[in-house]
Amino acid sequence: MIAEFISVGTELLLGNIVNTNAWYLSRKCAELGFSVYYQNTVGDNEERLKSTIELALSRSDLIFLTGGLGPTEDDLTKETVAKTIGKPLVEAQQIKEQLQDFFRRINREATENNWKQAMVIEGAVIIQNENGTAPGQIVDYDDKKLILMPGPPNEMIPMFERGIYPILACLQKGVFYSEMVKLCGIGESQVETMILDLIGHQTNPTIAPYAKTGEVHLRVTASAKTKEEGKQLVIPTIEELKKRFGSYIFTLCEEETLESVVVSMLLERNYRIAAAESCTGGLFMGRMINVPGASSVVGESYIAYSEAAKSNLLLVPEEMLRQYTAVSEPVAAAMAEGAQKISGAQVAVSITGLAGPAGMTDIPIGTVCFGCCINGHTETEHHVFHGNREKIRTYAVQYAFDFLRRRLLSNL
Amino acid sequence: MIAEFISVGTELLLGNIVNTNAWYLSRKCAELGFSVYYQNTVGDNEERLKSTIELALSRSDLIFLTGGLGPTEDDLTKETVAKTIGKPLVEAQQIKEQLQDFFRRINREATENNWKQAMVIEGAVIIQNENGTAPGQIVDYDDKKLILMPGPPNEMIPMFERGIYPILACLQKGVFYSEMVKLCGIGESQVETMILDLIGHQTNPTIAPYAKTGEVHLRVTASAKTKEEGKQLVIPTIEELKKRFGSYIFTLCEEETLESVVVSMLLERNYRIAAAESCTGGLFMGRMINVPGASSVVGESYIAYSEAAKSNLLLVPEEMLRQYTAVSEPVAAAMAEGAQKISGAQVAVSITGLAGPAGMTDIPIGTVCFGCCINGHTETEHHVFHGNREKIRTYAVQYAFDFLRRRLLSNL
Repeated sequence: MIAEFISVGTELLLGNIVNTNAWYLSRKCAELGFSVYYQNTVGDNEERLKSTIELALSRSDLIFLTGGLGPTEDDLTKETVAKTIGKPLVEAQQIKEQLQDFFRRINREATENNWKQAMVIEGAVIIQNENGTAPGQIVDYDDKKLILMPGPPNEMIPMFERGIYPILACLQKGVFYSEMVKLCGIGESQVETMILDLIGHQTNPTIAPYAKTGEVHLRVTASAKTKEEGKQLVIPTIEELKKRFGSYIFTLCEEETLESVVVSMLLERNYRIAAAESCTGGLFMGRMINVPGASSVVGESYIAYSEAAKSNLLLVPEEMLRQYTAVSEPVAAAMAEGAQKISGAQVAVSITGLAGPAGMTDIPIGTVCFGCCINGHTETEHHVFHGNREKIRTYAVQYAFDFLRRRLLSNL
Repeated sequence: MIAEFISVGTELLLGNIVNTNAWYLSRKCAELGFSVYYQNTVGDNEERLKSTIELALSRSDLIFLTGGLGPTEDDLTKETVAKTIGKPLVEAQQIKEQLQDFFRRINREATENNWKQAMVIEGAVIIQNENGTAPGQIVDYDDKKLILMPGPPNEMIPMFERGIYPILACLQKGVFYSEMVKLCGIGESQVETMILDLIGHQTNPTIAPYAKTGEVHLRVTASAKTKEEGKQLVIPTIEELKKRFGSYIFTLCEEETLESVVVSMLLERNYRIAAAESCTGGLFMGRMINVPGASSVVGESYIAYSEAAKSNLLLVPEEMLRQYTAVSEPVAAAMAEGAQKISGAQVAVSITGLAGPAGMTDIPIGTVCFGCCINGHTETEHHVFHGNREKIRTYAVQYAFDFLRRRLLSNL
C-alpha cells in the first residue's frame, strides 16, 4: 500500500516549526510496511489544500493529514477534506459531550468556535485525542483512506500509537515484527561501525539505527507471515547485538526509558535516591519524577546553584570549594555525600558543571563533574560536553542517568 | 514571488532523518519576502521527481531542490531537472579541476562516478560548495528559477548563505518587517476570538498567531519598501494588541522567553528566588537556570516529593498535611513560606499537584496548587491541567512562571 502525507500549517511554510510529524509518520509507515512516495506541506488555504488532497487521492492509498483541526477560522482541514470527497460534516454527540465535560472541568467558558471541534466528516471513524480537544478521524473514500490527525506532536503521536496504528496494522497481510535495542554511553558512529557488517548484508530482518540525545536505538524488524515467525527471525540478531554491545544496552523494551530503567533498578534494590544538582538545576530529578511511581524511590532532592548553597545546604567544606573550585570531582563527591547524609537515602547523585556561555579560568565550557554515592561509597567522573547551554545541560542529565545505571549494575 | 521546495531523498521518506532543510529554507524565504505555498518530499525516483518538478513549475517562480546531487547511481536530481526542462548536461571544467585537486589533496583515487559531479545543466550558474564535492546550480527556465543544492545541511546552509542568498536578495524589491507579541495565561482560541476583527480585515500588516505550550505568539508582519516604512506600518497594530491584551503580554521581544523575562524582573527588583517543587520535581528551577546569568537570582532550591520531605525539609506542619492533603492551597502556601525561610530569598514559588496516572480520592488528576511568597506575603492559586503526566507537569511549570510574573508585576 502506498501512503502519502499532507502536513497542513502556515507555521510550517514560514519555518516557525520543524516538520517532525512527517519524520515520525515515515518511520511508522516503514514499520507497517507501507511505501511512502510523497510528502507534502501546504498552508491553511482551502484551494491549495484541496488540489493537494486531489493529487494525493490520484496516486496513493492512505493519505495522512496532520494539522488544521483546531477551533480557529484558519483551521480548515476537515472542511476541505469533506468538500473534496463530497461528504457533509455532522455533529458527533460523543465529542460534543466530551468538550462540554472538558470545559466544565477546567472551569472555563467555551467560545463559539470551540464547538466546531465536535463536527466530523459523515461516516468517519472517530479517534480519541487524549491530550487535546480535536479528535482524529479515519474516512473511507472509494478504496482509499484519509486519516486526519491534529498537528501538535504531543497530541498526534499518542493518538497514532493507540488509536490509529492498530487499525492500520490490520490492513497489512503479513506482519512486521520488530524489537528494540536501546543503548547509551556510546556514540552513534561507533555503534554504526560495530554493526557495519550486519547492516551491509541485511535483508530480513533489518537493523535501523536512530540517534537520540545521548542514546542510540536499534530497531530490528522482520517481515513474516505471523508474529511468531517474525519473532524467530529477529531473535538471532538481537542475540548478536547483545553480544556486541553488552552493558551499553540499557533496555530491550520499546516502552522503557533510561529513567524508567534506573527507577526500576533502584526499586529492585530497595534504594531511595536524592540528587544534588548545580548546573542542571533540577532537570535530573525532574526527569526521574516523570516516571510514574517515582515516589517509591524519591523523597527529597536539592538544587545547590551557588557556592554558598553547596556549603550551607550540602555541607561541602568551603576550603574544598576554594581549593578545587565548584566544578571539580572532589566537590562533586562532597555534594553527593552531603545529599546522601541529609536525605537519608541510600543513593545520591551530584552534578556540577559549567554550562556557559560565561566561562571560568582554566575550565573549558561544557565541563561537568558527576558524583555517585551508594551506601557511603562514592565514585566521580567528569566529561566535557559540546554545544550551547541548553544542550550541555541536557547531555549532562543523560550522562548522570547512565553513570548511575552503571554504578547500580556493578552493585548487584 | 512564490517559492516551492522539493526535498529529494529516500532517507526522508523512510524517516531516517528529519527534514530540517525545508524548515531552514522556509525561514530564509520568509526573511526574503518570498511566499512559500508548497513543500514536497520525493524519493530518488526519476518518474516521481519529474512529475513533482513539472507541478512546481506550473505554480511557483522559484523552485529549490535539495539532495540527490551526489556521485552515486541513486543521485539523479540534476539529470531529472535537465530532462524535464529539455537542457543537456555539460562538463564544467572549473569543477573538474577542483575535483582533481580535492582527490589529490586527500590522497585518494577518484572513482569513475566522482566525475559525474563535474557535469552541470547547460547555462547554469555554478555555486561553490565549500564543504563537499557537489556544486550548487541556479538554472533559468522561462521566467522561473530552479535552484539545486546538496542535501546535507552542513553543505547546503553555508552554500545558501554565501552563494545563493545574495543572488535571491537582488530579486526582491521591498522588505518584510515583523515584530512579535508573546502572550501567556490565555488560551489560543480566546486570543483568536479577541482579534477576529483584526485578522478578518487584514492586508498589510498581517497578524499570524502561533500556539506554544501555554503561550500564544502573534507575529505582525508588514511588507514595505524600506525597514523604516515597515516599522511604521506595524506600530499601530502592536499598540492595538497591547491595548487588547494588556498584561497577558509578557514580551515584545522575539529572543525573550517567559523564564528570561521573569529572571529580568527578579534582577530589576534585586530579588533572589527559591522554589519548593513536588510534582514538577525540579523542572521549574531547571527551566529558570537555563537563562544565562540565572546565578544572580538563584542560590538554592528544593524538591520535596514525599510528605515527609514537605514537613522535614520545608517545615510544612504535619497536621496541615493530614487536614488538607499535600495537594492543597494551604500546603502550597506553607511550602513557599518554608522555602523562603530556609533559603533566605525574597521570593519563593511552590508547586504541589497530582500528575497521575495514579490518583487520590476526591482530587481530580491534573490538579496542581501553586504558592508564591514575596517578602513574607503569600498568595495561592490552583488549576486543573489536562493530558498525560508529562503534559500536566510541563503546563504546571508554565503556569508557575506566569503566576510569579503576575505577582511581580503587581509588586512594582
